[in-house]
Amino acid sequence: MADAIQDIADRTKDEVPQENKDTKKKEKKEKKEKKDKPAQKPKQQQGAKTAQVDTKGITVKKDDDLAEWYQQMLSKGSFISYYDVSGCYILEPASYSIWQTIQTWFDSKIKTLGVRNCYYPLFISQDNLQKEKDHIEGFAAEVAWVTLGGTTKLEKPIAIRPTSETAMYKDFHDKIQSHRDLPLKRNQWNNVVRWEFRNPMPFIRSREFLWQEGHTAHLTEESAGEEVLQILDFYAGVYEYLLAVPVIKGRKTVNEQFPGAYYTTTIEGFIPSTGRGIQAATSHCLGQHFAKMYDITVEDPAPRKEGEAGTKPRLHVWQNSWGLTTRSIGVAMLVHGDDKGAVIPPRVAEVQAVLVPVGITAKTSEEDKKAHYDKMTSMAASLVEAGVRAETDNREHYNAGWKFNEYELRGVPLRIEFGPKDAAAGVVTTVRRDNGAKTTVPIADLAKGIPELLETMQNEMFDKAKKEYEAHRVQLTDWSKVVSTLNGKNVLIIPHCLDGQCADDVKDETAALAKKEAGNSPEDKKAPSMGAKALCIPFEQPDLPAGTKCLRPSCGKDAQKWVQFGRSY
Amino acid sequence: MADAIQDIADRTKDEVPQENKDTKKKEKKEKKEKKDKPAQKPKQQQGAKTAQVDTKGITVKKDDDLAEWYQQMLSKGSFISYYDVSGCYILEPASYSIWQTIQTWFDSKIKTLGVRNCYYPLFISQDNLQKEKDHIEGFAAEVAWVTLGGTTKLEKPIAIRPTSETAMYKDFHDKIQSHRDLPLKRNQWNNVVRWEFRNPMPFIRSREFLWQEGHTAHLTEESAGEEVLQILDFYAGVYEYLLAVPVIKGRKTVNEQFPGAYYTTTIEGFIPSTGRGIQAATSHCLGQHFAKMYDITVEDPAPRKEGEAGTKPRLHVWQNSWGLTTRSIGVAMLVHGDDKGAVIPPRVAEVQAVLVPVGITAKTSEEDKKAHYDKMTSMAASLVEAGVRAETDNREHYNAGWKFNEYELRGVPLRIEFGPKDAAAGVVTTVRRDNGAKTTVPIADLAKGIPELLETMQNEMFDKAKKEYEAHRVQLTDWSKVVSTLNGKNVLIIPHCLDGQCADDVKDETAALAKKEAGNSPEDKKAPSMGAKALCIPFEQPDLPAGTKCLRPSCGKDAQKWVQFGRSY
Repeated sequence: MADAIQDIADRTKDEVPQENKDTKKKEKKEKKEKKDKPAQKPKQQQGAKTAQVDTKGITVKKDDDLAEWYQQMLSKGSFISYYDVSGCYILEPASYSIWQTIQTWFDSKIKTLGVRNCYYPLFISQDNLQKEKDHIEGFAAEVAWVTLGGTTKLEKPIAIRPTSETAMYKDFHDKIQSHRDLPLKRNQWNNVVRWEFRNPMPFIRSREFLWQEGHTAHLTEESAGEEVLQILDFYAGVYEYLLAVPVIKGRKTVNEQFPGAYYTTTIEGFIPSTGRGIQAATSHCLGQHFAKMYDITVEDPAPRKEGEAGTKPRLHVWQNSWGLTTRSIGVAMLVHGDDKGAVIPPRVAEVQAVLVPVGITAKTSEEDKKAHYDKMTSMAASLVEAGVRAETDNREHYNAGWKFNEYELRGVPLRIEFGPKDAAAGVVTTVRRDNGAKTTVPIADLAKGIPELLETMQNEMFDKAKKEYEAHRVQLTDWSKVVSTLNGKNVLIIPHCLDGQCADDVKDETAALAKKEAGNSPEDKKAPSMGAKALCIPFEQPDLPAGTKCLRPSCGKDAQKWVQFGRSY
Repeated sequence: MADAIQDIADRTKDEVPQENKDTKKKEKKEKKEKKDKPAQKPKQQQGAKTAQVDTKGITVKKDDDLAEWYQQMLSKGSFISYYDVSGCYILEPASYSIWQTIQTWFDSKIKTLGVRNCYYPLFISQDNLQKEKDHIEGFAAEVAWVTLGGTTKLEKPIAIRPTSETAMYKDFHDKIQSHRDLPLKRNQWNNVVRWEFRNPMPFIRSREFLWQEGHTAHLTEESAGEEVLQILDFYAGVYEYLLAVPVIKGRKTVNEQFPGAYYTTTIEGFIPSTGRGIQAATSHCLGQHFAKMYDITVEDPAPRKEGEAGTKPRLHVWQNSWGLTTRSIGVAMLVHGDDKGAVIPPRVAEVQAVLVPVGITAKTSEEDKKAHYDKMTSMAASLVEAGVRAETDNREHYNAGWKFNEYELRGVPLRIEFGPKDAAAGVVTTVRRDNGAKTTVPIADLAKGIPELLETMQNEMFDKAKKEYEAHRVQLTDWSKVVSTLNGKNVLIIPHCLDGQCADDVKDETAALAKKEAGNSPEDKKAPSMGAKALCIPFEQPDLPAGTKCLRPSCGKDAQKWVQFGRSY
């Protein structure tokens, strides 16, 4: 593999990178629409956080065309904008703020483990990158190379980090001299680049993405292993506590683990609309592979045995790496969004509640209007005081209905309507984004009632998603039902032998079967022909009776574990 | 210039990028020392924030060899580590944490202006990058180009952002449709790359650096101009309030302004040891240049004049961009550090106070030791409670003197010594890092006394640096004294015509004069032959009597302003 990188500049094929034509077409189409109907282009308030939404609304239903729905939801809701480098996206404030919330929460968690933030360079030298063989084999096809500085050709191409193991571990070699230097725990929040040629999808698969990458070194396998699971718990917290997205914890099968890892633990999410699994975050124990490649050793701190003499043996350290990316935002958007647009869980929403005046007409006197708006300003202030990220939208060039649509598209958790009748009754009317439920809350109770309502919504969003995931995790012991179960938008829990080749065969055979079944019903053009990949070996295992065979009929081996298989992203 | 970039891959020179040989040599030397004296390599405590310092101490004095001192201070104090891609450095937790403090402070300031954070891609297409002529001319020589994805040659090279004007303003064109979309205020915290071939210097000049870049669009020049100065005030706050580094606010002369800017405002710092100025941060009004290139316009919101008919004219928006980089950390390190190592201003120090036990000997009973350490733990807890970032260092395999050296090298603002005698007297002994001043503080007063002491230290560090800057800003009206004044480690305030060519001539002529003077005293090999660059036109102007001529004798034009000139970084 080292050869495969050597002098890469000279051996390159003159291929044109595949553009995401669908996205480009879509973008063009939308621009055209914009130009054709300038009157429908939404106007914006000065400096408001509520700018730039396309309230034409989403033109397809989520269940009918998820891909199209997803792109419209993200761009019309101002979560991303398209960009002229294929596979790269602009993260708008509405989505970047979700990332910042995740950062703050996760950062405080890893600090309790003694992890310190740092920053390693974007660039990795060719020599360094290819030091760990499995690792570079896993990433070589996706590495972006800088070959020019200004107009000067570089002596050797320099890689842009696809991940930083190789950037950091040469330095870990220098840093770690004694067992007292352990554990060494570092984390960085940065951008990485993986030059994929598959179709990109905002947040889910992009050529550049943001993430955190933790890298730690330990004296013992036990210490490393303990941390791997602590981190996995924090990752589950990001999804379940912040994003209201249920995940399944487990271990990756051998074929699916991180290139160079000893073992990989994972949290696996689920997209109900497609019935596909999605890898949510991974926490790897790298074992001693990298320590051996980068010569990271310490003297054995154990006291000398009686009669032992000479130089004490040096031990290779045990290493972990763990990463969570902006993909998490995409998963939450896919899980919670509906036909009206995004639905953002309250804990991560940039704006949690928006106050919208209703019943103000051309006939309302300026004096009454001012009094009404003043009341709203004071309510918003009391909400902010109570820790709610609240805003008021008094723009008069839009009517209330237009605003309702806008905030639904943006996924603002709570709309608080306030009209003259509400004022007279001393209440506001609240409308939940997730289920449309309307209630009234006395103005005097706002500071208590609104945070409670947001908390309820957060929990109910999670419960709903969890029930949906559970209903679509189907435990199966009948091979003949595999494809129909997949087609029913489920992931499978099946007994499996854990053999890597067999896992690959499951994927190929289910793909072939799915294709055949689709062929039997040619009218159903949407029947997917994707096979079922091994997603994880769930930590929580159903009972596996002795003598249970691997479900793949031609395997014949004993099953070792229940394994979650499914179509996936 | 567009031509100069076109097909850049084909026209490249086969030059080898200049390596920072000094750095490499140093690195090798230090590694050698490490290997030669493994016993002297510091040991570390498990998970402590105080790991990995090389307590051999700095081997040169700051005044004798600033460059060498700077590198030793940074690496021995664990602020940076060296890296195998030239011009790139590892930011260790001790320096990255300073950056995070700056981020938090500055972020809260710009939020009050309605600025929202977002993220634009690392990559910029060639077409887009070269759209604004002056801009690309300013950056072309420093742009790093990606030409390979995996083993696939890209159809066109893709630039790594040296700054994001060109990445963002194509998008601003789409976002800004109406005057109601204004002002549009965005900021991003990210990494940028400028592939310089000059000698790199950690924080001060590196090929990759971290920064924030704000980009805003306004309806009027007035609105834009107001923000430019608000941001400059915040930048001054980062330096003066957080980093205790005095700066001079001013405007850049035409030749020194940002490529593509209408005008550039700046804060200029000063490094006393070399008498050189240093650009600390810049806030630019871009005028309408980019708006014209990227066609960013809005309809004039002014009401129609009587009799006016037809399509209303569209106005080009007014744009600003402003950036503050990790250079700020380097400036603070250069200004405050001393022969013992770093001196970190309390407001940005990762650890503000470290409690070190003294007078604990082999004779101390385990019971007494435990009681002593317990008292320290409880003191540390009360300090943390009081908002002080305090730590305790009870490691027993190092003596107190070793620890004192270590924390001095690291620049920890306050050392709190606590021995059995202190315990008996109910006090602690505090030692300030900046001036070595010792005081005792009653244990009962710690929660009040220590924060006060840190505050005093912060203010006195600033006052000291400010006095030093003021003493070395020399107002001059005698051309014959220019070089001797520069050689006296001063920057100059001189009357100048503001003509760009004349400013360049000042630099060339002072360089020639300096070289000549150095030639006259050949024994003084260190006499710098650098000329004086125009640093800024200070906002605060001394009185300029009518008829004052530009100081450069062969100019002859009237002086327009007092201009700060100096040798610089």
